[in-house]
Amino acid sequence: MAFTKMLQQRWSDKTRMLCVGLDPDLAKMPASIQRSEQPFYAFAREIIDATADYVCAYKPQIAYYAAYGAEVQLEKTIAYIKDNYPQIPVILDAKRGDIGDTASMYAKEAFERYQADAVTVNPYMGGDTIDPYLAYGDKGVIILCRTSNIGSSEFQTLKCDGEMLALRVAKMALAKSAHNKNIALVVGATYADELRVIRQIVGEMPLLVPGVGAQGGDLSAVIQNGLDANAQGLIINSSRAVIYAGHDDDFAEKAAAVCQSYQHQIAQILNAN
Amino acid sequence: MAFTKMLQQRWSDKTRMLCVGLDPDLAKMPASIQRSEQPFYAFAREIIDATADYVCAYKPQIAYYAAYGAEVQLEKTIAYIKDNYPQIPVILDAKRGDIGDTASMYAKEAFERYQADAVTVNPYMGGDTIDPYLAYGDKGVIILCRTSNIGSSEFQTLKCDGEMLALRVAKMALAKSAHNKNIALVVGATYADELRVIRQIVGEMPLLVPGVGAQGGDLSAVIQNGLDANAQGLIINSSRAVIYAGHDDDFAEKAAAVCQSYQHQIAQILNAN
Repeated sequence: MAFTKMLQQRWSDKTRMLCVGLDPDLAKMPASIQRSEQPFYAFAREIIDATADYVCAYKPQIAYYAAYGAEVQLEKTIAYIKDNYPQIPVILDAKRGDIGDTASMYAKEAFERYQADAVTVNPYMGGDTIDPYLAYGDKGVIILCRTSNIGSSEFQTLKCDGEMLALRVAKMALAKSAHNKNIALVVGATYADELRVIRQIVGEMPLLVPGVGAQGGDLSAVIQNGLDANAQGLIINSSRAVIYAGHDDDFAEKAAAVCQSYQHQIAQILNAN
Repeated sequence: MAFTKMLQQRWSDKTRMLCVGLDPDLAKMPASIQRSEQPFYAFAREIIDATADYVCAYKPQIAYYAAYGAEVQLEKTIAYIKDNYPQIPVILDAKRGDIGDTASMYAKEAFERYQADAVTVNPYMGGDTIDPYLAYGDKGVIILCRTSNIGSSEFQTLKCDGEMLALRVAKMALAKSAHNKNIALVVGATYADELRVIRQIVGEMPLLVPGVGAQGGDLSAVIQNGLDANAQGLIINSSRAVIYAGHDDDFAEKAAAVCQSYQHQIAQILNAN
């Protein structure tokens, strides 16, 4: 099923806009998991089983696996989601960016090897470097637009030939989405005002919003500024605040409790508006 | 040894400015290699043994390995260079770019797992996302500035608050190089005029120049516009034109012949200037 279609089905519950980021850090896992043979996989499996009801997507971050040569555990984690929760889209957070032939290899990595439903990509090299991912049709391609880190203002907010660079990226994405509806953008929760401007530009395009939780973005501002005309369109990511809510054997329960609390807060915000 | 120091030793032969890009594509390898158990490793080993005299660096492209789950062959290829040609720096072409904690994981991947001497990174998310790589001190950090593809003009040449985006990236790199001399830039051979402008900005900073060969960049223009005041500073990359010069069992000999021909051309260009 197409990435955008999967998201829309998850969004049929209007309060289900949370994406859980899987950034497995051995030092933060309970001792019992650390001792297991495939700790990243064991950890993710418990998190997934505990939180699946609450999420619109999962977002494994490949760097955490690549640093330790744990690609097989990433493959298994995504396969576990596909086998047990096929309705939940998986976003491979890889932020790839390279010229044509190489981009095709990265697309193959994300969509064929890992079987992800979507991948994050970097626009710096130009829109032509995005096309090899779009060739997969149903797969989601999530383009970095305005990232959540403080330093993102160094280039992304420069006025480039009269218009902020991030907005030019948003318009490039919008132009490509005329031919493929599975394009989305990354816009940080830490820049909620710009989220409003970008939403106005891109209509119903899904927005992946990191920066709520550990990075300090405001959930209420994100929802007020980021929803589309159908009160949908947000993939609000939280990684550390969910998966490291606990450091003992009840870490998965605690992760679920944080997700529930997010969903409750989202419902309150929606009611208040 | 520090990346820049390794390069300078290779550049003691003024004509040795070629970097061979290792982009292993099974379909283009001779049948005998295709049948071997670790074809990417077997292929690279022969290329390396045949070309080591002529190169200032090797540049494996990780996407080609990641698409096929062949990370172990990449590890072995770099270890082979380290064991047999420790004087030749290895640039991991990965074009990574992510926020702090994640960037640290990518730095760990490049420098600890793969033992690369340098890694390519993407500046779109801002200079703060480059710092985790620089924390390794001696390791090279090669920042995308003006890439060789046609579409690179979509964003990189926009006039951003009065100055071309790629030049702003060059100046960010220059500012950081005050504290760490192991910073370099990627500037495509296909934009030789801009190579001159960027060289003027960055002084003796090494420039990795892709786009000679299959992409059509002009070697003479690259050398005339790209050398620093010491007639050094260029890492001129060629991938396909070298490694797929032959498709039969003499592929490594043919690769060496292409390298020799490049070195000969470089000598002629230097003499003519």
